[in-house]
Amino acid sequence: MSTAGKVIKCRAAILWKPSTQLSIEEVEVAPPKAKEVRIKIVATGVCGTEIKMLTNKTHYPIILGHEGAGIVESVGEGVSTVKTGDKVITLFLPQCGECASCLHPGGNCCIQRKQSHTGLMSDGTSRFTCKGKPIYHFASTSTFSEYTVIKEISVAKVEAVTPLEKLCLISCGFATGYGAAINTAKVTPGSTCAVFGLGGVGLSVIMGCKAAGAARIIGVDINKDKFEKAKELGATECISPQDFKKPIQNVLVDMTGDGVDFCFEVIGSPEVVATALASCNESHGVCVIVGLLSYGDQVNIDGFLLFSGRSLKGCIFGGWKSREVIPKLISDYTAKKFNLDPLITHTMKFDKLHEAIELMKSGKCIRCILLF
Amino acid sequence: MSTAGKVIKCRAAILWKPSTQLSIEEVEVAPPKAKEVRIKIVATGVCGTEIKMLTNKTHYPIILGHEGAGIVESVGEGVSTVKTGDKVITLFLPQCGECASCLHPGGNCCIQRKQSHTGLMSDGTSRFTCKGKPIYHFASTSTFSEYTVIKEISVAKVEAVTPLEKLCLISCGFATGYGAAINTAKVTPGSTCAVFGLGGVGLSVIMGCKAAGAARIIGVDINKDKFEKAKELGATECISPQDFKKPIQNVLVDMTGDGVDFCFEVIGSPEVVATALASCNESHGVCVIVGLLSYGDQVNIDGFLLFSGRSLKGCIFGGWKSREVIPKLISDYTAKKFNLDPLITHTMKFDKLHEAIELMKSGKCIRCILLF
Repeated sequence: MSTAGKVIKCRAAILWKPSTQLSIEEVEVAPPKAKEVRIKIVATGVCGTEIKMLTNKTHYPIILGHEGAGIVESVGEGVSTVKTGDKVITLFLPQCGECASCLHPGGNCCIQRKQSHTGLMSDGTSRFTCKGKPIYHFASTSTFSEYTVIKEISVAKVEAVTPLEKLCLISCGFATGYGAAINTAKVTPGSTCAVFGLGGVGLSVIMGCKAAGAARIIGVDINKDKFEKAKELGATECISPQDFKKPIQNVLVDMTGDGVDFCFEVIGSPEVVATALASCNESHGVCVIVGLLSYGDQVNIDGFLLFSGRSLKGCIFGGWKSREVIPKLISDYTAKKFNLDPLITHTMKFDKLHEAIELMKSGKCIRCILLF
Repeated sequence: MSTAGKVIKCRAAILWKPSTQLSIEEVEVAPPKAKEVRIKIVATGVCGTEIKMLTNKTHYPIILGHEGAGIVESVGEGVSTVKTGDKVITLFLPQCGECASCLHPGGNCCIQRKQSHTGLMSDGTSRFTCKGKPIYHFASTSTFSEYTVIKEISVAKVEAVTPLEKLCLISCGFATGYGAAINTAKVTPGSTCAVFGLGGVGLSVIMGCKAAGAARIIGVDINKDKFEKAKELGATECISPQDFKKPIQNVLVDMTGDGVDFCFEVIGSPEVVATALASCNESHGVCVIVGLLSYGDQVNIDGFLLFSGRSLKGCIFGGWKSREVIPKLISDYTAKKFNLDPLITHTMKFDKLHEAIELMKSGKCIRCILLF
């Protein structure tokens, strides 16, 4: 019996208040309205952003999760690019195709992403309710729910043969890191790169640097347990700042002679941004901020670091237009140009969400995929 | 009678102590040693950097001046690229052609520029003496002297027909601003640009934006007297922050809908760098720092400004390799692709140096050229 047009009852993890545990509850998911899609989530990653959101200020109660993949259950009026039964991945960064940023060749900050700041759909309401209360959406995706409702501009169709429990990684972590190297920094063949922070996104940066032909890729992390995997994925060497008396930027300049060509901050620390910039070649070095800085974080940089010619760049979703790049990434994945398996260290049932969160917090896990 | 190989006595302006007046004295200029060139300076610009150097910490006593053009009087051993009688311009940024930066396609911070920090030539001595005391060189050029000694890698030969009293501007101010737009920012046709600071370098940025085909060029300065010239050179409109109640970055975002594509800070203020960055389009906006920040100046930026995709870049000498680009710029000048005349508001004899400095300080002068 079709569920289209009906309210669906299913499991979802709700954050009722800041700094509390996520609570798995039964929620009601309303049918999609115009230009919306209701998706049965098959798999969702637990990204570092979720860990940050457990304590960051947001709307409450809320359903977190944004790195998802699933199957379209039903579509609202006017939806033309996906249909019931299609495999899709969720996109925290939409691509409306009509705003100034979508129309600009170099832009990917679709104006519609601002909708997510409200925690509500375009009509100002939520599609989730629990115990009679409306529940806020997170990042326009809310994939920590068996069913979710997302705008058409925030989903990308993927080929039927692709394994959703792996591809959900492309919807955020992998595309963010890989794109930062390939697309934002435009890493050049033979170059030297340094990557600060060897979590799932940092490792994806390393994969991007390797794919772009970098000759030397230096991983930097205080957790040496991460070095083995980093080397497996392309790092030519790994260092811990705790092993040196001098500042790590000086170590990197000594190691390379005159600083790295490309540097990536994948931690989300304003201090590390300044350190990463200082590690770059003074004249042509490019430093890309990939880590999520908290709102209001001040990046304090010695003006002389920039004056000589360094560049400091930010990027969201690897600087890519989200819906546009997904087919290309899926096709590269299918052609085995990159392998997502090493990034997925844990896969478990959605009910084990708390275990997954603890694994992410401990740094013992690169990516844990939750399956419904 | 040839002066080659002999000490030359001539006039030069010496800064004996910080925050004092420059003093015009008779100095002795030693012959050039190996790989050095002695030049009879014909014309020198008074750049904003000289004004800053009057109070900044440096070596004393020193001969300032770096925006010069002249004729080779004699050359030291092993000099092969210029000869006696050649017209040359002086380059505060050398190009040795051998260091990692010179060999890198994107670099222009020749390692040899660090020599200038010592205020001495490569052998650790000065070529200037006055009243029995050695006098320091400034920016490896010291053009506030009728004769100066410069390393071969810090001079560029120019065609015999070119007017030195105009071309000296290319040796710093013009190349710095024009290159920041054309080469560092890579301003695109049809784009919107904003230029903070409408001095000689800022106006050169405007000329670069116009040459690159920008559709809209907004000049920003608190001195409205500068607006007329800015418009003459390509600004499509000019605004003063003092005419608005809201912050100027908000004004620029309102004027353009979603921020400018390219923004240039040509003042040398860390606060204005942050303002200029905030004026850029959040996703693809590029902010170039052209103004000279003081050593130790901290640029404090809200991390969110960068996160969404903006870029912040510095540049020296417009990001160009100095010796390499000069023939191209001279050829563009000869082909009338740009006109230096509007930038030169005053020309006077070297003896009137103090008058020129007062004019620069007052903001009533774009560029004053001193003639020997």
